[in-house]
Amino acid sequence: MIERCLGAQRSRKFHRALRQCKVTALCLVLTVVVLRGIIGAGEFGTPEKDFYEIRNRLYFPSRKRGGDPHRVLEERRTTSSSFATHDRNHNKNNYDEFNVKMFMEDNGEDDEKPDPNEPYSRGPKISNWDAQRAQWLNENPDFANFINKKPRVLLVTGSSPKACENPVGDHYLLKSIKNKIDYCRVHGLEIFYSTALLDAEMAGFWAKLPLIRNLLLGHPEVEFLWWMDSDAMFTDMTFEVPWERYKDYNLVMHGWNEMVYDQKNWIGLNTGSFLLRNCQWSLDILDAWAPMGPKGKVRDDAGKKLTKELKDRPAFEADDQSAMVYSLATERDKWGDKVYLESEYYLHVNWAILVDRYEEMIEKYRPGLGDHRWPLVTHFVGCKPCAKFGDNLAERCLRQMDRAFTFGDNQILRTYGFTHKSLASGRVKRVRNETRNPLEVKDKVRLLSPPYKAVKVIRNLVCFHNVVQISHRLMVKRW
Amino acid sequence: MIERCLGAQRSRKFHRALRQCKVTALCLVLTVVVLRGIIGAGEFGTPEKDFYEIRNRLYFPSRKRGGDPHRVLEERRTTSSSFATHDRNHNKNNYDEFNVKMFMEDNGEDDEKPDPNEPYSRGPKISNWDAQRAQWLNENPDFANFINKKPRVLLVTGSSPKACENPVGDHYLLKSIKNKIDYCRVHGLEIFYSTALLDAEMAGFWAKLPLIRNLLLGHPEVEFLWWMDSDAMFTDMTFEVPWERYKDYNLVMHGWNEMVYDQKNWIGLNTGSFLLRNCQWSLDILDAWAPMGPKGKVRDDAGKKLTKELKDRPAFEADDQSAMVYSLATERDKWGDKVYLESEYYLHVNWAILVDRYEEMIEKYRPGLGDHRWPLVTHFVGCKPCAKFGDNLAERCLRQMDRAFTFGDNQILRTYGFTHKSLASGRVKRVRNETRNPLEVKDKVRLLSPPYKAVKVIRNLVCFHNVVQISHRLMVKRW
Repeated sequence: MIERCLGAQRSRKFHRALRQCKVTALCLVLTVVVLRGIIGAGEFGTPEKDFYEIRNRLYFPSRKRGGDPHRVLEERRTTSSSFATHDRNHNKNNYDEFNVKMFMEDNGEDDEKPDPNEPYSRGPKISNWDAQRAQWLNENPDFANFINKKPRVLLVTGSSPKACENPVGDHYLLKSIKNKIDYCRVHGLEIFYSTALLDAEMAGFWAKLPLIRNLLLGHPEVEFLWWMDSDAMFTDMTFEVPWERYKDYNLVMHGWNEMVYDQKNWIGLNTGSFLLRNCQWSLDILDAWAPMGPKGKVRDDAGKKLTKELKDRPAFEADDQSAMVYSLATERDKWGDKVYLESEYYLHVNWAILVDRYEEMIEKYRPGLGDHRWPLVTHFVGCKPCAKFGDNLAERCLRQMDRAFTFGDNQILRTYGFTHKSLASGRVKRVRNETRNPLEVKDKVRLLSPPYKAVKVIRNLVCFHNVVQISHRLMVKRW
Repeated sequence: MIERCLGAQRSRKFHRALRQCKVTALCLVLTVVVLRGIIGAGEFGTPEKDFYEIRNRLYFPSRKRGGDPHRVLEERRTTSSSFATHDRNHNKNNYDEFNVKMFMEDNGEDDEKPDPNEPYSRGPKISNWDAQRAQWLNENPDFANFINKKPRVLLVTGSSPKACENPVGDHYLLKSIKNKIDYCRVHGLEIFYSTALLDAEMAGFWAKLPLIRNLLLGHPEVEFLWWMDSDAMFTDMTFEVPWERYKDYNLVMHGWNEMVYDQKNWIGLNTGSFLLRNCQWSLDILDAWAPMGPKGKVRDDAGKKLTKELKDRPAFEADDQSAMVYSLATERDKWGDKVYLESEYYLHVNWAILVDRYEEMIEKYRPGLGDHRWPLVTHFVGCKPCAKFGDNLAERCLRQMDRAFTFGDNQILRTYGFTHKSLASGRVKRVRNETRNPLEVKDKVRLLSPPYKAVKVIRNLVCFHNVVQISHRLMVKRW
């Protein structure tokens, strides 16, 4: 009886224990699984992956995700990294980009797969551009390439047709173009913002080449084209480029002759902000510049060659900057006499060496200097705000891009009587009381109507109504 | 002995059970807590909240979150909703915005809390602006307010100084300004993009008023200021505003006299895209327009009045559009004769009525018509891409904004020989083979150098070098 009783107790105990174990095990499994989930979704593990899965579920529920990593990396090259000059800490970034892109959504379009047997073509060679352009300028006197001795300039920049992987990236692209709009309005420059990849072959750092070629040919009235990366910002709104200094030159980049021609150093110049004259010579150097660009084997092999030939260049696929250094260093006789390497002011400067000094600049100096005392263009080399993630560099980048933007924006706002509360603040405050005679104040500033923007016009030149009709008729015909 | 044995067994059983229960309970609690977390992080529950918590942890680890809902909603009004005309399905959106904003990060700055006892001031009344401006224009002949009979126009738009709550929102702001840059380049308009809230009192729909006033006073050379919301895009790149039609008018909005003056309908006109002449009359109407703007009690009480007085207006705080309808309807004698309500072409059109018809338009019509056949401006009323979330409307909005952008962009790309692969595609393809004589093609188009942009200039008007010196000296003095 006692044994039976003990036996029955044992079996009850056993079953109860079993039941409890089942619940416990189930709970443990659930907990581990779900913990893995939440850990992935932000702070540790693979934040990009989970972050984008959440983002995609929220905003692109219809879109496919994932896909063949290689194919996706190809796509990465053809989209978000377009228009950005290659950064310096490349190896690290490449992995980041790969990891990020691995988990990006696929927009469902096929990548263009060029025929590897077909040689890359940049279209028919144009050899008499100077004559064609001169004739056009002669026939269109109202679209002069010089106004008040100042060349007509088109500032060209751009970004990917897709939203940034980094959700705050597009906000910085927006700030960057607002900043360029301000400088260009003040200095009378026109702007072309590109979101199109005109040649899938020339993706990434190389996307600017076909774009620039098309714009030179499309705008004979433009004397100088000013390429600027999307991660470069104007930090001196007053400084005017010394155009007269370049009257005998066709290509102006920030750099140093010794570093390019003697050392063949791959950072002897920078292609993130440069001036290119609209002429045959420029079409020719674009042709000489482009051959290392086609993505895949051509670009990879060229990269090895450039790393071998250039000083301090890390090993990676060919980039436009290294190719330019190489072309100039190896063919100085052919190009050198028309290339001006500018180092008197900052047509470009790497952000890392001066962004902490903005307060000191404000205290000691004034806008209009353009050099280390008040840099014309601050270039956020290596930041890739559109692609990179919340690591330390990216965080510092974003904070400093905000400071640079505000530093430039204050120069604009002051002309209207406002300023940001601090370089870290989006809020603004009055620095000048309103007056009944606003124009008396304004005359001192001249950023609102700067003399170098003056255009003496002959009124009543064109009957406006006819013009619209003409333009409309032409558009219909063209279409 | 048996009893002792049974007693010992009971106590062992009890302790074992207790231990297992502890583990089970712990597991259950953990599971529930963590499940609650992951459920929040995307698909159900409160996606915004968890989404932003993740985003903030990733990108703004230093930032505080949350805060008093009321205070935060105030901040919402003072930031992201700035510069957007009030949308139609307001009640719904307000809840969305509130929910979204509830969980937005706080950038750590205090809101400006105006003294409710102090009456709102718009600064000293200016009564002789026409005389001041005429004198300035006379003294600055190189900054004529008319060029070739065409008024000098400044297009003004803007967005919040902060990143959008919706991570893809800034991408659409970027597309929107690229679209405006294109139209303005083609038509010779200048652009001012504002990211500053000049008057904390006049936040939200009202932010444009102090901005416009400051720009009119800052730019006497500007004849017409063209305000455009950030959610409006140019969809006819050829259409030129019939400026001559407005030579006797100071304010041009899309609308209908009957709806405004007879019906007092709050959507009888739209303030998302309008033209305002730079003159004393405009400063006066801004003064008459502004009093309902100050946020808080003034704006709320005015809202009740507007809802009572205007046809079909839902109940919500006073908005700039309703206030304009009310001013015109109640003071037609004072303003009516200088206000032109345009309905022959779309200075603005609500996207909902035509975005599905772009393919039909391409098939049947041509750019340059500006009306229902090829709308000049498509306004994404109610979309709020910067603020809204992945509900059905928002998803349709984003898809249609992409289509509108591409529809406009194709008109630009075609002039360079390219077009998008489809209205849904960011990719482009050639539509014209490259030629050795690009200018022969171009002459037919005239979007590259449109006749209404022609400026006959007198060369060598200013010695450039001196100008820089002058400008620099003036800047130093000003600073």
